[in-house]
Amino acid sequence: MSKVFAGMAASLDGYVATRNGDLSWLNQAMSSDEDYGFAATMKRTGAYIIGANTYREMIESGMAGGGTTPTYVVTHQQSIKGSGKEVGNEVSFYSGDLRMLVERAKRETNKDICLFGGADLVTQFIELDLLDELGISIIPVLLGDGVPFFGRFNEWKRLTLFECKEYKSGIVLLNYRFAHS
Amino acid sequence: MSKVFAGMAASLDGYVATRNGDLSWLNQAMSSDEDYGFAATMKRTGAYIIGANTYREMIESGMAGGGTTPTYVVTHQQSIKGSGKEVGNEVSFYSGDLRMLVERAKRETNKDICLFGGADLVTQFIELDLLDELGISIIPVLLGDGVPFFGRFNEWKRLTLFECKEYKSGIVLLNYRFAHS
Repeated sequence: MSKVFAGMAASLDGYVATRNGDLSWLNQAMSSDEDYGFAATMKRTGAYIIGANTYREMIESGMAGGGTTPTYVVTHQQSIKGSGKEVGNEVSFYSGDLRMLVERAKRETNKDICLFGGADLVTQFIELDLLDELGISIIPVLLGDGVPFFGRFNEWKRLTLFECKEYKSGIVLLNYRFAHS
Repeated sequence: MSKVFAGMAASLDGYVATRNGDLSWLNQAMSSDEDYGFAATMKRTGAYIIGANTYREMIESGMAGGGTTPTYVVTHQQSIKGSGKEVGNEVSFYSGDLRMLVERAKRETNKDICLFGGADLVTQFIELDLLDELGISIIPVLLGDGVPFFGRFNEWKRLTLFECKEYKSGIVLLNYRFAHS
């Protein structure tokens, strides 16, 4: 049974990005000697679900396109597709019900499904009990301001910690499971 | 040389309290079998520095008063003292410069100085480079809304992780040192 998982890096004060998109706080904290599991994450992933804003940022930074893993971009508009940028053959745009999207993705792969931001989409997935695993890499820095890594929930969500990994760089990876009601 | 340290428990989405003061998310997560270091913290503490609002909440919940450890309550007013509540002989109110308060507390004890909230005061201490250690216990719950555990900073603050302790309950204690410039 494939799982839906999300992973993110956040500052100790809970921000996933600065207001101006400066990533040096993250790049400076990471060490090239450490395995943060990116390769293992790619290997387990049979489909990506990505928010429209995050996807637009990926296109603009040259990080999107060319992959062979099915990728669903959740959007309320089709304008990204019309931007003329290369989006890859496996990318499709989706604007319907999120439960049905997860069902569709699960029909098409036996591997896991990676939810890749942003905060609004992750929050919606959590509210709808669609997220099975949440991994957070806590970067040893206080940013003081930025983009929060969660929106607001209507009720508390309890989690079960199943992995706590400390790196020499001071980064700590925390992996949680959600108990679905 | 005595150190100034702060410790707090926060939800995974970065809140130290709910808006209505409900502590059940914290009490339910903690296990009576686990040693969270409260006794060790009390033992190392030669003075407490507490924000006025936090102190008021402690008085109202019956948690303040009767201690023998010198306690400085940072306030802009003297009204708490006039509330008629028992505040203990070792409590004094302080409304001046925070650097001078730390110097004064360090003259009076060789033990460490515990900074005990709230977020505004902790943020001021961090901005002024007065905090040496920061301990955060991450509770495995998403609250969705609440009182954030930091205010905003003017610049990034890098930290050095020196302890990462995982409890069976899923609580993770992260202890950091600040590098003072």
